[in-house]
Amino acid sequence: MAGAPFGGADLDAVGWDSYPLGFLESFRFSDAGKLAYARQGHPDIAAFHHDLYRGCAANGRWWVLEQQPGPVNWARHNPAPMAGMVRLWTLEAMAHGAELVSYFRWRQAPFGQEQLHAGLLRPDDESAPVLGEVETVAREIGDLGPLGSGPRQVALIFSYEADWVTSIQPQGAGLSALWAAFDFYSGLRQMGLNVDIVHPSASLDGYELCVIPCLPIVSDVLLRNLEKFCGQVVVGPRSGSRGTDFAIPDGLPPGALFPGKVSRIESLRPGLAHEGDGWRIEQWLEHLETDAEPELVAADGTTASWRAGSIRYLGAWPTPDIVRALLGLAVLDTNLSTHNLPEGLRLRQAGDHIFAFNYGNESCDVPPSIPECVVLGDRKIIPAGVAVYKNVLN
Amino acid sequence: MAGAPFGGADLDAVGWDSYPLGFLESFRFSDAGKLAYARQGHPDIAAFHHDLYRGCAANGRWWVLEQQPGPVNWARHNPAPMAGMVRLWTLEAMAHGAELVSYFRWRQAPFGQEQLHAGLLRPDDESAPVLGEVETVAREIGDLGPLGSGPRQVALIFSYEADWVTSIQPQGAGLSALWAAFDFYSGLRQMGLNVDIVHPSASLDGYELCVIPCLPIVSDVLLRNLEKFCGQVVVGPRSGSRGTDFAIPDGLPPGALFPGKVSRIESLRPGLAHEGDGWRIEQWLEHLETDAEPELVAADGTTASWRAGSIRYLGAWPTPDIVRALLGLAVLDTNLSTHNLPEGLRLRQAGDHIFAFNYGNESCDVPPSIPECVVLGDRKIIPAGVAVYKNVLN
Amino acid sequence: MAGAPFGGADLDAVGWDSYPLGFLESFRFSDAGKLAYARQGHPDIAAFHHDLYRGCAANGRWWVLEQQPGPVNWARHNPAPMAGMVRLWTLEAMAHGAELVSYFRWRQAPFGQEQLHAGLLRPDDESAPVLGEVETVAREIGDLGPLGSGPRQVALIFSYEADWVTSIQPQGAGLSALWAAFDFYSGLRQMGLNVDIVHPSASLDGYELCVIPCLPIVSDVLLRNLEKFCGQVVVGPRSGSRGTDFAIPDGLPPGALFPGKVSRIESLRPGLAHEGDGWRIEQWLEHLETDAEPELVAADGTTASWRAGSIRYLGAWPTPDIVRALLGLAVLDTNLSTHNLPEGLRLRQAGDHIFAFNYGNESCDVPPSIPECVVLGDRKIIPAGVAVYKNVLN
Repeated sequence: MAGAPFGGADLDAVGWDSYPLGFLESFRFSDAGKLAYARQGHPDIAAFHHDLYRGCAANGRWWVLEQQPGPVNWARHNPAPMAGMVRLWTLEAMAHGAELVSYFRWRQAPFGQEQLHAGLLRPDDESAPVLGEVETVAREIGDLGPLGSGPRQVALIFSYEADWVTSIQPQGAGLSALWAAFDFYSGLRQMGLNVDIVHPSASLDGYELCVIPCLPIVSDVLLRNLEKFCGQVVVGPRSGSRGTDFAIPDGLPPGALFPGKVSRIESLRPGLAHEGDGWRIEQWLEHLETDAEPELVAADGTTASWRAGSIRYLGAWPTPDIVRALLGLAVLDTNLSTHNLPEGLRLRQAGDHIFAFNYGNESCDVPPSIPECVVLGDRKIIPAGVAVYKNVLN
Repeated sequence: MAGAPFGGADLDAVGWDSYPLGFLESFRFSDAGKLAYARQGHPDIAAFHHDLYRGCAANGRWWVLEQQPGPVNWARHNPAPMAGMVRLWTLEAMAHGAELVSYFRWRQAPFGQEQLHAGLLRPDDESAPVLGEVETVAREIGDLGPLGSGPRQVALIFSYEADWVTSIQPQGAGLSALWAAFDFYSGLRQMGLNVDIVHPSASLDGYELCVIPCLPIVSDVLLRNLEKFCGQVVVGPRSGSRGTDFAIPDGLPPGALFPGKVSRIESLRPGLAHEGDGWRIEQWLEHLETDAEPELVAADGTTASWRAGSIRYLGAWPTPDIVRALLGLAVLDTNLSTHNLPEGLRLRQAGDHIFAFNYGNESCDVPPSIPECVVLGDRKIIPAGVAVYKNVLN
Repeated sequence: MAGAPFGGADLDAVGWDSYPLGFLESFRFSDAGKLAYARQGHPDIAAFHHDLYRGCAANGRWWVLEQQPGPVNWARHNPAPMAGMVRLWTLEAMAHGAELVSYFRWRQAPFGQEQLHAGLLRPDDESAPVLGEVETVAREIGDLGPLGSGPRQVALIFSYEADWVTSIQPQGAGLSALWAAFDFYSGLRQMGLNVDIVHPSASLDGYELCVIPCLPIVSDVLLRNLEKFCGQVVVGPRSGSRGTDFAIPDGLPPGALFPGKVSRIESLRPGLAHEGDGWRIEQWLEHLETDAEPELVAADGTTASWRAGSIRYLGAWPTPDIVRALLGLAVLDTNLSTHNLPEGLRLRQAGDHIFAFNYGNESCDVPPSIPECVVLGDRKIIPAGVAVYKNVLN
């Protein structure tokens, strides 16, 4: 499992509460984006938390303490999950390594403040519609047997400290390390990759790619680990921009992370952009004095990212489009195989099983890059559907 | 008059302050909707309050204590009423049963906090433009003589308790019993019907239609009154959903109001809808297990309303479109005559007089269903115009 | 210099802090308007403050204490100024009469709360890109020599008291004397005129035009000065509407400022407008009883402005379009020469020099009305460019 435990070293197990529909509200998608996943939740929200909290668990033991089983009572809008989603969310948690998924709550309470928070039973003790899904998924989990952990593909480095630093001095409205991490994570998932979200002190052994979305304070441990690291590295903005005393380092950012000096930082209002080929420099721009090779360069000559050996530095905000372009370049330099996934489809490899989850509103076919051996489901997956394939050669 | 008085039993008379232009701001119309009635106020706002406070008056005595006579000083925008509107508002209050209409204020105060609140006189003691309208309407009221009360057509049941319950646990942003009541009221008015807004304990004798827009806590008195009631009943969402202990009743909502069990409740974000024929299930959806006959069914098979004998239950939020569809069905089963009114035209029957008020921005003709005998005005009514017809056969 | 000093009479010099990009956020331009000037600041913001604080300085001595030299750290968005803008802002301050322009800060601080506030030096003591501009402009200022003060053309009367009165009782959302002053100022600048923003007690000697954008409380000194004044006068809404006791004057506004009585005041929601020829009555409308000649009259007959001799009264809110129409009429009755300026170009005459500043995103040609003698730059001016011409005949 991922190394350093974000302060979870002395916990027996780590647990979190997964409410994919309610959480959709607090993420920064457009209204149209929220509408598209109103009954499923965004395909990366639950998985992001699974992969984050797995990294918090010293011994890899983590649970979903409360899994949303139906409409809840506390978000602005509380629709019912699409039929099948509770099964999907459950299998997804298992695929990401959960030891336990517990539904909250057993029976919808007929009194108190949470009367309209669904349970597996209705307030009158009859089965809620979701109970059948839960019975099905319990059987499926048993049939699949122990899954084993996922292959080490991508280490995404996140630190709560980074989010504190960037929230205290955001420098541009709404920009913080958490959102940088989420958008890099989502970009990696859209390529079908397994991601471990790890503490900056975690070992990078065995990974092909290390992504550092936004890490102002860089520890010596991380620098040493990167020095030993044989894979590709992607570094995002503001990384290396502060010392442990919260001051700009003497030699200017990004310091030892990448050869160069950030001489100027701008945050950009909506619409103020430098257009690239399928991407734009938006929201944030660092001017880097460097001998490194410019890679992503906008039509007006502004450089978004540079490459020095196996390390790439992104001086722009990691919006989905620029993340896609940058990761596309980095992955080509690794041995990772990516998948060309339909929108809303996500994968997770656990042991020699490859899970596919269709969060989309339309049925879709898994791409030919998915192994032929079907363990569960089919190669066409309906909305809220799940399929499992076996990687016979792995 | 309407029965139980909302706590007004020991008052000699009930009064309220009518500011149709200022109130427009705090209602939930779109910007375009507010703009259309910027100089008139929405055609149902003043009338809704008239009919509500008449129901609060134990002995039917109610007054308009402060009638807006011109631009006021406290809303975000304070335009002048369209010429004629102060006369219209005054005649409308009388038609709804007001005993007295008092203008606030006599003279625009040249000092203090309300210097830009218009009066019948200007700050320099000269007549404000509105004084002529007020003199005209005073003469007209005298000429019309005592009007008599309106016929019992529709009882709309409202309770402040219902609004408290739904505001405390709205379950979906901005949904509460008050707005459900207003939208049902507006739908009834667009059909030209006389509405009494009454307390849940009020007698229903003599009404053709009883509308219960949203009434979580249902009293035994109401159930007994409904049992005796010979007319049609329309019940809106969340009705019967709570006991007096604020808990979900054992047998699930809507309890004795309608045969069935609400097994699941969803609130829906804007855009998440089930399309019907000229209406949509939006904002709120209850799943009802029932043997009752589905009436309004969306194209995807989702049921919005059911009928069981003379009672209809609406499981969706009462938006204007769905209210129109549902009331259209219910009224067909009564002896009520409705009117096909141009937009912005509203009626009120008082004794054997039928008043017509044109809140619209264009002149309009009253429909042929209006009696031929013209007491005041004409069959074409200009914007801000009023006409009175006599129901010779009534 | 302008007369009474807004309370600055006992100060040796007056100073202010000029952050054109950060200030853009807090002005009321549309998003598109802010985007157009995202890297320059709006062309009238810095100049408005220069001309205002010059009027606060008893002896005409005023400084820019902090001039933005690059991206700052405190606005919602903090882009870099367009190359050349720091030079432009500096020359503009000098042209408006600044005795000193000091950049904040000398060195970008590598510690504390303002680490991302640019300086002339970077945090590592190297020159920031802007240092070259500052060296250039220092040389240019020396070469130009003492500039002399500008000709008296327009006195724009502003008082902090006026802004307090209108902010306390705005009567319409967001309407206050400050914004009225700014929009009149911007309209005057678009005609290429020199403006002095002066206290209501300032002498009007030598001016061709006096603009009183919005002055509720009118002093006897101002009335006496206007009586002696030979130029044209433009008076905006709410002027003369209050006594020093904050009460509406006995004879109704605008009192001695203009013959007539404001009998009614309306504030208008967005979209509620009276269309004129290239302008609209929006946001605010005063009904004036007067024998004065209506000048700007909307298509529906509503009068926006009247003329009585050399005085014009505007009863509508001074939006940019109506300001342009009204000033156009007033200036025709003066000896002032105006200039037909491309968007984003601004002028300032100082002594016999005429400065031209291109705030626009495109290169532009100065109009033929500009003197032929070029002291600095050329007749075509690039974005962020400055040119200086000499008025040989003046």
